[in-house]
Amino acid sequence: MPIKSRIRTVADFPKQGVVFRDITSLLKDATGFRITMHKLVNRYSGKKIHKVAAVESRGFIVGAPLAYALGAGFVPICRQGELPAETIWQDCESKGEFSPSRVEMRADAVSKGERILFIDDLLATGATSEAACALLRKAGAEILECAFIAEMLALAGRVRLQKQGLKVFALTGLGDDA
Amino acid sequence: MPIKSRIRTVADFPKQGVVFRDITSLLKDATGFRITMHKLVNRYSGKKIHKVAAVESRGFIVGAPLAYALGAGFVPICRQGELPAETIWQDCESKGEFSPSRVEMRADAVSKGERILFIDDLLATGATSEAACALLRKAGAEILECAFIAEMLALAGRVRLQKQGLKVFALTGLGDDA
Repeated sequence: MPIKSRIRTVADFPKQGVVFRDITSLLKDATGFRITMHKLVNRYSGKKIHKVAAVESRGFIVGAPLAYALGAGFVPICRQGELPAETIWQDCESKGEFSPSRVEMRADAVSKGERILFIDDLLATGATSEAACALLRKAGAEILECAFIAEMLALAGRVRLQKQGLKVFALTGLGDDA
Repeated sequence: MPIKSRIRTVADFPKQGVVFRDITSLLKDATGFRITMHKLVNRYSGKKIHKVAAVESRGFIVGAPLAYALGAGFVPICRQGELPAETIWQDCESKGEFSPSRVEMRADAVSKGERILFIDDLLATGATSEAACALLRKAGAEILECAFIAEMLALAGRVRLQKQGLKVFALTGLGDDA
């Protein structure tokens, strides 16, 4: 089952000139969703991952099932102002249409030395993932890898994350042809 | 493991006088998250659920693992303006601090007659769930049940949903004492 073929491309959303990659086609299809998650679960099983962290809100859709399947905890990284009590945050060099300007997390979300898998649905410029991973590291986390369903190849988010010493994995790549 | 004891209560968030129930304590604890999801998976296994639907964004954290574990598709119901292409929507009689004024879904998210489980983390006034279920029914869905990790008993969201002919299930109830 080619995952790529189930990611819908919508032109000019949310504004003229932007090509939006929509994973809701993949998710609503029980087989597509199951196979996507299976591939991720297989990759990370037995890797002693303490927690899976993901950014609000589409990241939750892939991060939470993965955490559950791996027997790990789940850490939601949110937009500013969504979380109560003591938090830590990191500003994003935001470029995407739906990207937050700052990401925030519980101050006690991770403990020093915990092995964390970071995941999101799509890797675009990588600005949000970069900020989220900086936040996790600030809390003392060891980031095993940054995983994505798909990466938008032209935006070179992978290079951005690798410059921070982060490992990057994507199930598929989306080019101009896809 | 009492789920209730792992839901954190934070006074005066997001504003003075509001008691915020925070599920992130439950989620970041691998055991707490696993047991919570197991209970839901056990309840709905074998119930021929085609899709699990949940509202952005904390609903995704419980809805997506449940969809995956049940072998169902996942339908994200979003705040206004988040989804591309053709959508349908429903206005909410909003009362909560973080409640959206309108919920939106892909026009083709569900097919007529599909059996849908609706889920969210917390049942407060029920206004958002009511709107989401109205939206699912507008698309022709049969809603098996509305499930929640916890219901805030004093807000009587259960009654509101039952008035719409919806079945309601919560793993735990939060009263003034909890």
